[in-house]
Amino acid sequence: MNFEEFSIEEAFEEISSLYRDRNFSAIKAILTQINPADIALLFDEFESEQRILFFRLLPKEEAAETFVELDGDTQEALIHAFSDTELREVLDELYLDDTVDIIEEMPATLVKKILKNTDSETRASINTLLKYPEDSAGSIMTPEFVDLKKDNTVEDAFKRIRRTGVDKETIYTCYVTDKSRHLIGVTTVKELLLHDYDDKIEEFMETNVIYIYTHDDQESAANLLSKYDFLALPVVDMEERLVGIITVDDAIDVLQDENTEDIQKMNAIVPNEKPYLKIGVFETFKSRIPWLMLLMVSATFTGMIITAFEDKLSALIILTSFIPMLMDTGGNSGGQASVTIIRALSLNEIDLKDIFKVIWKEIRVGIVCGLSLAVVNFIKIWFVDRLLLGTEGITLKVDLVISCTLIIEIVFAKIIGCTLPIFAKRLKFDPAVMSSPFITTIVDAVSLLVYFWFASMILHI
Amino acid sequence: MNFEEFSIEEAFEEISSLYRDRNFSAIKAILTQINPADIALLFDEFESEQRILFFRLLPKEEAAETFVELDGDTQEALIHAFSDTELREVLDELYLDDTVDIIEEMPATLVKKILKNTDSETRASINTLLKYPEDSAGSIMTPEFVDLKKDNTVEDAFKRIRRTGVDKETIYTCYVTDKSRHLIGVTTVKELLLHDYDDKIEEFMETNVIYIYTHDDQESAANLLSKYDFLALPVVDMEERLVGIITVDDAIDVLQDENTEDIQKMNAIVPNEKPYLKIGVFETFKSRIPWLMLLMVSATFTGMIITAFEDKLSALIILTSFIPMLMDTGGNSGGQASVTIIRALSLNEIDLKDIFKVIWKEIRVGIVCGLSLAVVNFIKIWFVDRLLLGTEGITLKVDLVISCTLIIEIVFAKIIGCTLPIFAKRLKFDPAVMSSPFITTIVDAVSLLVYFWFASMILHI
Repeated sequence: MNFEEFSIEEAFEEISSLYRDRNFSAIKAILTQINPADIALLFDEFESEQRILFFRLLPKEEAAETFVELDGDTQEALIHAFSDTELREVLDELYLDDTVDIIEEMPATLVKKILKNTDSETRASINTLLKYPEDSAGSIMTPEFVDLKKDNTVEDAFKRIRRTGVDKETIYTCYVTDKSRHLIGVTTVKELLLHDYDDKIEEFMETNVIYIYTHDDQESAANLLSKYDFLALPVVDMEERLVGIITVDDAIDVLQDENTEDIQKMNAIVPNEKPYLKIGVFETFKSRIPWLMLLMVSATFTGMIITAFEDKLSALIILTSFIPMLMDTGGNSGGQASVTIIRALSLNEIDLKDIFKVIWKEIRVGIVCGLSLAVVNFIKIWFVDRLLLGTEGITLKVDLVISCTLIIEIVFAKIIGCTLPIFAKRLKFDPAVMSSPFITTIVDAVSLLVYFWFASMILHI
Repeated sequence: MNFEEFSIEEAFEEISSLYRDRNFSAIKAILTQINPADIALLFDEFESEQRILFFRLLPKEEAAETFVELDGDTQEALIHAFSDTELREVLDELYLDDTVDIIEEMPATLVKKILKNTDSETRASINTLLKYPEDSAGSIMTPEFVDLKKDNTVEDAFKRIRRTGVDKETIYTCYVTDKSRHLIGVTTVKELLLHDYDDKIEEFMETNVIYIYTHDDQESAANLLSKYDFLALPVVDMEERLVGIITVDDAIDVLQDENTEDIQKMNAIVPNEKPYLKIGVFETFKSRIPWLMLLMVSATFTGMIITAFEDKLSALIILTSFIPMLMDTGGNSGGQASVTIIRALSLNEIDLKDIFKVIWKEIRVGIVCGLSLAVVNFIKIWFVDRLLLGTEGITLKVDLVISCTLIIEIVFAKIIGCTLPIFAKRLKFDPAVMSSPFITTIVDAVSLLVYFWFASMILHI
């Protein structure tokens, strides 16, 4: 199936019409042709009762895979509707990290129902996983990995994989542990396949294993998986015992979520992980109002600056016309610098120790940008505003004030834009917050001060 | 090795000191302990000659893996320094998609040197891959995959993997093709391991295969890999013949690059893929100046609006003080809406057909945000600006003008912020361009008009 061929709408129409005819076997046939990720999208279009009905048509394995992809509300409705046997069937097929994700979203009564239907061993694992702090590596790992011993032969390894592999989230990376469960090596099914059956694992396993602790940040884990092109990353506890793995598909989700979060923070939005259409008006309001409020109130300073120079402005009211342009250009320049640095920090391209290199570069970029914009602006004001539009009050000196302000404010904006995110990181805050809207507020004040200073100097007002 | 333990600086110091003693065997011992991705970072710290020297110390396979991770300039210097035999050794170990990536960055003379040292079959594949347009699925795929026939048994499959697997980028997903190389099924090594040796592939292969065309966008490919949690995605040509696969590690790189690109575009930066510290001042300037220039010049409109209402402003100069606050708040509100929509579009959470749902939601969010801000602002102006700071000229009516403007401009900003990205997408432009800086410029003009309108209505000036 080509990815463009499958249309949720068409499947919806078809299934709806089959539903009217009560032709469930045909619906079942269609559903088994669709990938679980798409079934979940498709279910979004149906009513709650239909969803439960259709879910029951899915084969066991597909049902579990679909269940993981559904949103929290639908999962809740399904668990409500399930008999204990049905619930147990789904839970049996789920990987533990997914079960934990689901439990974290459920109300207490449903959590009880879930835990009642898992065996005691699983329940113990779930409880351990639930204890890891949110956003930690431990919270996204799964304890279901293949572990081998160093004196296993390739044949032993394959036997073990065949016996236990069906329940493992990935079998392709195999971990070698000693008696006390310390991680001593790693190998892959590819290596196993390329060696003879009686070769011993320790002869070819990689001993220089890269791992992460349960309490490390999930973003670090995702970055490691991405940097080293791993399919899975081992997670150890404080005693360096192997307790779980993080698989690449979960790493991608973490990276995407962190990117979304960065983008939201960069634009004065309090992060919210849910998809746009699933968030209500009030929740959207709550994620947007705090920064709007804070930034609005902090604009009191720009108001105060203007008030202080009110007499200058009323003496030469033309100066007011250029305030929006100066402020936007300053804000945009600062914003460019800050997002560049924030992104570079989050991709680990720069480090705290690079701060002077960064500032020196931004100063030079600021000077070149400032000069170019000032020249263009100088000419534009003279020819467009004065001659073409006939705006009154524009003199060469006024033009000069505006152009000089541009140069200085842009250099300032670049410096502020690049230093604040680095300072934030130094102070263990998220650099992403030091982005355009915040920088703009500061740059605005600086720009106005520079503007009025040049006005005093050049125009003697 | 825990990811925090390895320090590039420490390794640099140690190797530098060993280098002074000409103790190359010790250097070699250290390098073989380090992951290729880290060796590449480490090499950045050394001089060019040292890099070439150290590179020659690496074992064959590690050398090739390190080579891929190095930046273009270092790769170029190494290829220059290589003898034909050395170059051939590295090329033999590289996967084809990596070779193609390298060739794309090299000057013509080095490309010749590379092609001279590959066999004719590889050369033909390279030439095919080089023809795919940049950013297409074809340009990031590799033709090195495991293909099976439907009447192969599991035993046949493992034999084939053992024989040819060492050169394949991934062996874990195996593709089943017919005689004319059409893709008819897919299976995994996990499935193979869980079936008996004499089971036939066709009995358990997945026939509902999700694939992509060579000319499709690389971002679509990456999104599919992420959505379906695949380790590899098959790529077919116009005749639906399987010609390559895209592996999950390359998909992660594409996703990260696309995220960086989106963030840059959202902040008025012309995208540039290179890491921050590797871009010169002039190149940085070139990526920042176009939007700054365009946005600066388009601020002519706000200037014109202010000029047109100059008499009102000089009659009541206090109105000027609140222009920065009104503009920033409008810009921030619009920016919030636009980035939210841009992100939702790029994660496929919303679609063109959702436009009315989106607008309706943003209007309601805008009203709630606008009302809250207006109330706070009204009180703040009265108590802080008038009573506490003693700003002259503030009357109840002035306060009312500012607060009413806030409500209307925020609703406008939200509407503009959410519709422009969707229109851009409709017109096949990148929605990311319709972000804060651009929205701000439009919202500024609208806000000023609203402001002066309320001033006329309420203050009768």
